[in-house]
Amino acid sequence: MTKYVYSFKEGSKEMKSLLGGKGANLAEMKRIGLPVPSGFTVTTEACNFYFQNNHKINEKLQKEINKHLELLEKEEGKKLGDNKNPLLLSIRSGAVISMPGMMDTVLNLGLNDDTVEALAKQTSNYRFAYDSYRRFVQMFGDVVLKIPKYEFDRTLDKVKDKYNAKLDTDLSYENLKEVVDLYKKIIYKHTKKEFPQNPKEQLLMAIKAVFDSWKNERAIIYRRINDIKESLATAVNVQSMVFGNTGKYSGTGVAFTRNPVTGERKVFGEFLINAQGEDVVAGIRTPKEISELKDILPKVYGEFIKTCEKLEEHYKDMQDIEFTVEDKRLYLLQTRTAKRTAQSATKIAVDMVKEKVISKDEALLRVTPEQVNRLLHPSFDEEELKRSKKIAKGLPASPGAASGKVYFTSEKAVEVSKNGEDVILVRTETSPEDIEGMVESRGILTSRGGMTSHAAVVARGMGKCCVAGCSEIVVEEENRLFKVGDLVIKEGEYISIDGMKGNIYKGLIHTRSPELSDDFKVFMKWADDKRKLGVRTNADTPKDSKIAIDFGAEGIGLCRTEHMFFSDKRINAVREMILSDNKDDRVKALDKLFPYQKEDFYNIFKEMKHRPVTVRLLDPPLHEFLPSEEKDIKNVAKKLNLDLSHLKEKIMKLKEFNPMLGHRGCRLGISYPEIYEMQVKAIFTAAIEAKKKLDINPHPEIMIPLIGDKRELKFLRELVCSSADKIFQKEDSVITYKVGTMIEVPRAALTSDEIANYADFFSYGTNDLTQMTFGFSRDDSGEFIREYKERKILQKDPFESIDINGVGKLMKMSVEAAKKKKENIKLGICGEHGGEENSIKFCHKLGLDYVSCSPFRVPGARLAAAQVTIKE
Amino acid sequence: MTKYVYSFKEGSKEMKSLLGGKGANLAEMKRIGLPVPSGFTVTTEACNFYFQNNHKINEKLQKEINKHLELLEKEEGKKLGDNKNPLLLSIRSGAVISMPGMMDTVLNLGLNDDTVEALAKQTSNYRFAYDSYRRFVQMFGDVVLKIPKYEFDRTLDKVKDKYNAKLDTDLSYENLKEVVDLYKKIIYKHTKKEFPQNPKEQLLMAIKAVFDSWKNERAIIYRRINDIKESLATAVNVQSMVFGNTGKYSGTGVAFTRNPVTGERKVFGEFLINAQGEDVVAGIRTPKEISELKDILPKVYGEFIKTCEKLEEHYKDMQDIEFTVEDKRLYLLQTRTAKRTAQSATKIAVDMVKEKVISKDEALLRVTPEQVNRLLHPSFDEEELKRSKKIAKGLPASPGAASGKVYFTSEKAVEVSKNGEDVILVRTETSPEDIEGMVESRGILTSRGGMTSHAAVVARGMGKCCVAGCSEIVVEEENRLFKVGDLVIKEGEYISIDGMKGNIYKGLIHTRSPELSDDFKVFMKWADDKRKLGVRTNADTPKDSKIAIDFGAEGIGLCRTEHMFFSDKRINAVREMILSDNKDDRVKALDKLFPYQKEDFYNIFKEMKHRPVTVRLLDPPLHEFLPSEEKDIKNVAKKLNLDLSHLKEKIMKLKEFNPMLGHRGCRLGISYPEIYEMQVKAIFTAAIEAKKKLDINPHPEIMIPLIGDKRELKFLRELVCSSADKIFQKEDSVITYKVGTMIEVPRAALTSDEIANYADFFSYGTNDLTQMTFGFSRDDSGEFIREYKERKILQKDPFESIDINGVGKLMKMSVEAAKKKKENIKLGICGEHGGEENSIKFCHKLGLDYVSCSPFRVPGARLAAAQVTIKE
Repeated sequence: MTKYVYSFKEGSKEMKSLLGGKGANLAEMKRIGLPVPSGFTVTTEACNFYFQNNHKINEKLQKEINKHLELLEKEEGKKLGDNKNPLLLSIRSGAVISMPGMMDTVLNLGLNDDTVEALAKQTSNYRFAYDSYRRFVQMFGDVVLKIPKYEFDRTLDKVKDKYNAKLDTDLSYENLKEVVDLYKKIIYKHTKKEFPQNPKEQLLMAIKAVFDSWKNERAIIYRRINDIKESLATAVNVQSMVFGNTGKYSGTGVAFTRNPVTGERKVFGEFLINAQGEDVVAGIRTPKEISELKDILPKVYGEFIKTCEKLEEHYKDMQDIEFTVEDKRLYLLQTRTAKRTAQSATKIAVDMVKEKVISKDEALLRVTPEQVNRLLHPSFDEEELKRSKKIAKGLPASPGAASGKVYFTSEKAVEVSKNGEDVILVRTETSPEDIEGMVESRGILTSRGGMTSHAAVVARGMGKCCVAGCSEIVVEEENRLFKVGDLVIKEGEYISIDGMKGNIYKGLIHTRSPELSDDFKVFMKWADDKRKLGVRTNADTPKDSKIAIDFGAEGIGLCRTEHMFFSDKRINAVREMILSDNKDDRVKALDKLFPYQKEDFYNIFKEMKHRPVTVRLLDPPLHEFLPSEEKDIKNVAKKLNLDLSHLKEKIMKLKEFNPMLGHRGCRLGISYPEIYEMQVKAIFTAAIEAKKKLDINPHPEIMIPLIGDKRELKFLRELVCSSADKIFQKEDSVITYKVGTMIEVPRAALTSDEIANYADFFSYGTNDLTQMTFGFSRDDSGEFIREYKERKILQKDPFESIDINGVGKLMKMSVEAAKKKKENIKLGICGEHGGEENSIKFCHKLGLDYVSCSPFRVPGARLAAAQVTIKE
Repeated sequence: MTKYVYSFKEGSKEMKSLLGGKGANLAEMKRIGLPVPSGFTVTTEACNFYFQNNHKINEKLQKEINKHLELLEKEEGKKLGDNKNPLLLSIRSGAVISMPGMMDTVLNLGLNDDTVEALAKQTSNYRFAYDSYRRFVQMFGDVVLKIPKYEFDRTLDKVKDKYNAKLDTDLSYENLKEVVDLYKKIIYKHTKKEFPQNPKEQLLMAIKAVFDSWKNERAIIYRRINDIKESLATAVNVQSMVFGNTGKYSGTGVAFTRNPVTGERKVFGEFLINAQGEDVVAGIRTPKEISELKDILPKVYGEFIKTCEKLEEHYKDMQDIEFTVEDKRLYLLQTRTAKRTAQSATKIAVDMVKEKVISKDEALLRVTPEQVNRLLHPSFDEEELKRSKKIAKGLPASPGAASGKVYFTSEKAVEVSKNGEDVILVRTETSPEDIEGMVESRGILTSRGGMTSHAAVVARGMGKCCVAGCSEIVVEEENRLFKVGDLVIKEGEYISIDGMKGNIYKGLIHTRSPELSDDFKVFMKWADDKRKLGVRTNADTPKDSKIAIDFGAEGIGLCRTEHMFFSDKRINAVREMILSDNKDDRVKALDKLFPYQKEDFYNIFKEMKHRPVTVRLLDPPLHEFLPSEEKDIKNVAKKLNLDLSHLKEKIMKLKEFNPMLGHRGCRLGISYPEIYEMQVKAIFTAAIEAKKKLDINPHPEIMIPLIGDKRELKFLRELVCSSADKIFQKEDSVITYKVGTMIEVPRAALTSDEIANYADFFSYGTNDLTQMTFGFSRDDSGEFIREYKERKILQKDPFESIDINGVGKLMKMSVEAAKKKKENIKLGICGEHGGEENSIKFCHKLGLDYVSCSPFRVPGARLAAAQVTIKE
């Protein structure tokens, strides 16, 4: 028969899934001899059983609870509801995965009009007894009876005003008694029943309330956000009360065994004298720093510090502790692994290796890749943040924090940033034409598009803060404003955006820059020693390349060439090329672009030196380079000396219904081989020049986008090789290079055996592969993907983390087919997934050679790659 | 050692691939005792060897030719180049697959200044000898020496003028001799060499010329159009000459053993007296009907008719014959299976079964599915067609022929057609808003979009003629005209379009309607007896349903509900629904649509009776139902009493970058369950009403579009079933139904095992599956798919015929996974491929239960399904 209740003496920290985190750790602390008030835990299984049983506590469970209550009474020598020596209880939830503040607690249970008197007499402390009673009635009313908390708060404030009491502690025993009477009236008003005087009834009601709190709204939301399964359920801990509110030798507090912000090895925390747990959180009085306890209760302090050491030693990790002092006696009420900042996590991991507490492998598992990434981005000043008004929330598209004045066009952003203004570029969605504006802005906010929209991808590439797809805002570019509900933010007004959380704030919030510590460097070195997967970067400029190398990238896995086409000097030549009616004119325009492209590649090779540089030949549809607004079209017609109606006709002809599935990628290279020829010529001329001038040995890898059929690659491979040969002959120098393709069209994955014949490498372009496998346009699907996640149709956004069941299956088929055909084919990934933890783990298991991601995600990728190796 | 030359005595009709069609059949005719002049065939292997050998005839081949020449000389008792008894030869190409008129022929080879005199003396016919010499020099100059033919023609005309000769036959021996001398000068002028007098040299040069003609431009184009491999090569037939130009008892002609247009069993053909083969083709004199030969040369005629019978009996098919009569002696120069019209093909197949010449299975293989389909569509009057000017060519998107005045908007088309005018609707591309205009037009012409563009799909569904993606034309809707180069066609001008060939003509051409013969019905019955694959139809209206049943459809495989939303009364309710800000308003608008939808389904059930009707719930993105033009937006705002700027905002918000991959299909059903609920309610209310009122037993199959994940289908299946249950309870009646999904998103194919759990049937939506597997937008890819076909990157347009390597692989995975999970799952296809021959064969092999296609393709599909069963 299932056992639903465990005494603390029966449990251990390994029993978390049954006893919840709190229960398991209370038992564990008891087991290792720490001062923990006695009690028992009603299991998570009991909770699930309760839900299945129509939210009823059945007889069997009730019996088990009663049995453990009796044992507890015996142990404590007190009795629940006893008129002379009453046992009081705390009832606390205990989920398997900590959900701080999400669920309910009832303290001082067992008090009623009789037992409060007994407690008063027994302790000779009427004030304490009635303070406890007041607290209990309030908590019970709030948590168990669901009466709005503010009614109690307001009543308490009124009584405080009446007696001119500044703090709760200024209230006398009589005052508190008056409060209790008023509270009882509130309860009667709401429930039409008297406050329950029977402690056993109180107990069952409280246990039920904790069970039910597992399904309250805030818990549901928290679980959804943190991906916690509902079936885990919560345990309930019933524990003998200890009192921090018996007077000046009592108190309560929370502490961390190290500094959770900096990682410094020094106990960190705060406490309140003459108070119960909730007072610390509520902020009614200002708590004192833990070190001050030394002066007030030196012996207790010493004991506490030792306990902290013991706990760390036992758990081999920083702990987050709740404690109470009752008349100079220390009790521990909770311990758990402490949450910490990224900086602290790294420092503690490195320190604990030095302290020989944990191994390097353990240390590497202690920090999440996301934390590592967070270290690289600026964050808001926490104090200013608290005072700021959050006005909307979008997708956390690119981490970091930024404040600036809003502007709605790239031109304007460029213009005002030249005057030294900080700009947040706000657009419905960005397009490649906005690149310059994005470069000049502090952050980017869009109302459309998902985690892999243009704005998101480019911003992450730049390491620039971006909140994307914020559908709450309506951008009215023509009116130079955006709206959030009734709120209107006009051009030039300040906003602040948090790219890690997706939050938008009104007004300016200052940011702090990151400093990479020596600990960080040591830590990352350990990760590199461990990992098997290579880590490259997606970088299109020498600047990005440099950043990525600093962050540990081993090469470029994706250098997009289209971004190079947008700057002012080039775009006209690009447009001239596109608008040419014949090959000769196209070649002439391409000749103008050649020196720019050559210089681009030269400077990238200069940064990357011997490291491989995968250059993707031109990918986007040509219409992306043409203007769409009437006035811009007129400008271009004038600049290029073209007939306006002819230009418009041409633009119309190039327009596509679904550009994503249109005339782009290798399809362009096949229609206009001269474009790819120019690019290949630029790459190899630059490589040879770099080799000669800089005495380095560049390793270009030419990547053909959007291949769907082997014949496309055969055609273009021949074109690349013959163009390269021409340069080698002309320059009398040879560069070692590879030719490969992106696998981003489902058909390419399906026919990888055929395609492998013509490829030295495959790079999985999982952005497009996901788009086509799901039939989700990344620019349009943000809204319904969010809906799908809410309805649990999708567990995760497939643009964030590789969809292993579908897209992953295609990748697996492809990898197997390719390796069968060509054992040594090099395999990588250059979709945005290359920087995401679970996707990196999947790539490791698939047997890829490397992942490639934006520069600011490189360290996280290095760590994720190390972690999956360790876990294997 | 490879044998490169075969005597006619060595060959047979089975040796086509080696000897070419002509050579094999000459040998065969010789074998069965028909009068064929002797000769030999240089094989296709020799031709390929010649190409590999740098276009040179090597010594070995030359030896073999000489050996066979000697044998021929011995047989004929004549000698090539002999001054007394010269052998003359005809040199003709012979491809494996007949390429009429594409390649080269040289007659009368062996003549020179000496042998012509010998021939004259021997035959006592100077005129004949010099006529032959004149012909030879001209043909040799044209075919072998590549001198422009018009130079010879002009010279001949000049001499004719000079001697006042009306016809060639009016020229005397002296005149012809003068022509020969002038011809020789032309040759010298062009080649700087004398006309070659050595007959052996002439022979080798002629053989080379025939080989080379395999790679001339018109042959290359013909092969590309007809999908003939270059490696098949051509053979060369060297044959002793017989002469139709020796006088009034000689002649030459071509004939069919039956009527190739009607199929009537009567020899059909024409001949010329005193002429050589090329004269018939050249049309210099008007040939006589074959029956007239009876009067002129009755014995020869009798012999010829007997020969025709013998050939048909031997080949068991209608033959196309070339013959020559030399001094009352009949010679056969060629026989081959005759090309024929669709009507003729069907009649002959049925007749030959009745005549016990072939079996039913053989008969079914004698007609192509495409021919059957052609029988259903009107075609142009052939005479008028010849006189008409072809101005452009697009994709043959939907067969048939249509003439009408051009109009550029749906509204205008509807308006003028009401006045009885025939309309050709000309658009850049059609959209669902154009449906009414399309219905009212005789034909549709678009400048954009491919074989599965909206225009193409809808037109085929309607059995309406359509030419799509005609990129040569530029449509200027605002100016109410379109341009083809310099030609401008204005609103109201007549054009004619041929949807079978893709041709566009200026002006009116009358059309003829098809009449379905009894033969056709008998033939289709045989097909139905044979086939295993079910054939359903894609039909959205009662009218289409009726047509499809008449054409033999066994059910509806795809009933699209969105087309039902466009008619005038409904569209406003649809728009109201879309523009609603909350569910209540949406439900109100949907309530208005419900009675229409119910009626739609009622009438379809009425036509379809017990047959299954697969209804696809709403699929397209909602913005397709909203106006895009400024003035239409204003109208809608007025009609629905909406704030204009609010309406515009809403339209902006719904706009998508890639609608193909956007918020559509089941994604709509999940966001707005009330839409699907209304549709399901309409289907089942209609089915119950039909059951009660009409005493029929409808079989609805509810099909959910665009499923990519099992959870989508689970959610929507539950919605369908619970909505159905509600109706059943309310109406106190039950309808048997199925719930299934389209497999059109690659991920659905990849996870078919999971999805099968929630589906009673799968229908492969190969249009979208092809779009996403290739990453080809069907609206945008027409142009580059054409280019891909030209460059041989694609063999076929994957929207026309299933791409077996890629899309087919996905389908195969899906079928296997689904059947493994659920043995009895029903599998069909409803993409446009369901009507295409090769795709139908693939579906049969995959083990699908049925194909579904537009009504007018149903008979072709029935035949294709029968053929694949026979061939198995």
